[in-house]
Amino acid sequence: MSGFPYMNRQYLFDKYPNAVVTSDCFKLQDEVITQIDDGEILVRNHYLSLDPYMRGRMSKAKNYAAAQELNTVMQGGTVGEVVESKHPGFRAGETVLCTGGWQLYFRASPSTENNHIRKIDVSRIPMSVYLGAAGMPGITAWYGLNKILNPKPGETLVVSAASGAVGSVVGQLAKQKGCRVIGIAGGPEKCDYVVEILGFDDCIDYKAYPDTETLSHELKQLAPNGIDAYYENVGGYIMDAVLENLNPFARVAICGLIAGYDGRSIPINNPRAILVSRASITGFIVSDHLDIWPQALAELAEAVANGVLIFKESVSIGLESAPEAFLGLLQGHNFGKQLVKLV
Amino acid sequence: MSGFPYMNRQYLFDKYPNAVVTSDCFKLQDEVITQIDDGEILVRNHYLSLDPYMRGRMSKAKNYAAAQELNTVMQGGTVGEVVESKHPGFRAGETVLCTGGWQLYFRASPSTENNHIRKIDVSRIPMSVYLGAAGMPGITAWYGLNKILNPKPGETLVVSAASGAVGSVVGQLAKQKGCRVIGIAGGPEKCDYVVEILGFDDCIDYKAYPDTETLSHELKQLAPNGIDAYYENVGGYIMDAVLENLNPFARVAICGLIAGYDGRSIPINNPRAILVSRASITGFIVSDHLDIWPQALAELAEAVANGVLIFKESVSIGLESAPEAFLGLLQGHNFGKQLVKLV
Repeated sequence: MSGFPYMNRQYLFDKYPNAVVTSDCFKLQDEVITQIDDGEILVRNHYLSLDPYMRGRMSKAKNYAAAQELNTVMQGGTVGEVVESKHPGFRAGETVLCTGGWQLYFRASPSTENNHIRKIDVSRIPMSVYLGAAGMPGITAWYGLNKILNPKPGETLVVSAASGAVGSVVGQLAKQKGCRVIGIAGGPEKCDYVVEILGFDDCIDYKAYPDTETLSHELKQLAPNGIDAYYENVGGYIMDAVLENLNPFARVAICGLIAGYDGRSIPINNPRAILVSRASITGFIVSDHLDIWPQALAELAEAVANGVLIFKESVSIGLESAPEAFLGLLQGHNFGKQLVKLV
Repeated sequence: MSGFPYMNRQYLFDKYPNAVVTSDCFKLQDEVITQIDDGEILVRNHYLSLDPYMRGRMSKAKNYAAAQELNTVMQGGTVGEVVESKHPGFRAGETVLCTGGWQLYFRASPSTENNHIRKIDVSRIPMSVYLGAAGMPGITAWYGLNKILNPKPGETLVVSAASGAVGSVVGQLAKQKGCRVIGIAGGPEKCDYVVEILGFDDCIDYKAYPDTETLSHELKQLAPNGIDAYYENVGGYIMDAVLENLNPFARVAICGLIAGYDGRSIPINNPRAILVSRASITGFIVSDHLDIWPQALAELAEAVANGVLIFKESVSIGLESAPEAFLGLLQGHNFGKQLVKLV
């Protein structure tokens, strides 16, 4: 029984941002989907994930991912329901995780496209979690923590953007490993959440320490024995301040540098700290490491289901809210994993 | 048969440099050595090694090595001859490598002090080489290349300060591993030496490319397939330019950042390149890795003896020439391993 036609609505990438992303970088478009071909499925997207990496793609500059082309549907991870299927591996009613984009419906060819359509089990956790703590952000946290930082019990770990989708998982997993964990986040509300709800040992409100010197001093107070591992989501002076407090043989995982995403290039002002501490700084992208996804996903989903991995979502309602929500994400206005509810 | 008394002459560390080191940071002092105690030896230093790391110690700032204290003899590696011994393990006439300092004679307690007195075999290579290609600089090259960069045949490796004591060994060992090797050095004379004598594939005169943009462009010409490994001795805009040309999963070993040693802090202006390339940047100090010294020393001394590892020395004559030679080293005026001949 078919429900055609479907009224799709989607955001195209319309204009390169000058520096700061503005809502006129995106253009709304409607289309009618009247059928699908053999081998295809049609997914009704329920949630769209908004992530900082999207900013990197909206640029002609060299990047780790393929650039977002002008006049194409904005890419993005989604969870949704299969509403039509002409593919033997999928049935209407199944829930899937896919890169369904900024749109209401996603027409896909599971066998021929590299769009990572995975069936997900929503019997124990809500589908939206597969875009957050048990999805790409959670796996990003898991990889950087376990494969790069690899902290030992008793070591001190610092994570920036600590209340965010990635940072919140990093800190919770590090606490479970027996580390002393210090978060860095923006504003007292986020810091309270990080300590009271997520269980970090401390959290520094960077807005109260607006330069390298004051932030470095505060880190010294909270980590008097130095910092052994740093999970970086932000960059800028926050990174400078952490580098000044590294212990010998410290590890730094660079997951993101959101402070510089709007075109400004923010330097590391004291590279000598890398030498003095004999530190290792490693940039990584979780999509390079698809081999670890099954293990990481299983562990994270289990932890969420058991209530030992806490997450928070910031949900904006309706496709039309996506541009503003994305702009807010880049400014740190979200609190927890930023989603757009499409249904 | 004893030769007492010995007329020693030595340089004390007299004054912290403001920014650039000046010769009045050092003070000459004479002393008479009339005897040694049981368990001690007296070494006549033949060659003193001058190395960039010494600049780092002449500071109150956090460093990887113990700071040089004011009013103490300037530390430094030396090779020399045992002239007196009241230690059962040493005899007059033996040649040793030690940290004998900026002085003519070094009075040492081999069993109780941690001053790494090693007997050296001077039957096949000159003793001075144990301060260069078959000494700490050579081992520094060996460690960073083999244990951090670990390049594969066919990969492209770049090394800065390519004609220096460390860089020259890095490039020659990398060529032996089948890499394409590009040096960076200051001036056409050094670049010619690096290509014609040492056998690197190319060498860029950074003085002809005085900013990130022009140097980056030149690197792109010489490494059209990108850079897989970078051995960093210098820092500053040279590092920025290399970072812009890194391949995915490139490795960077930070051995030194001499461009910033006179107190200026020179930033890394494009840390985003670390993320885009998923690169690893590792600072290291060879003295952390004493376990690899025997293997590295044996390989390097053998290669020098067999003529497959070429080295160059810049020798200034007489203890009194040490301050000026050291100032020149920090400015890149030396050409090859900087030594002071004391005998």
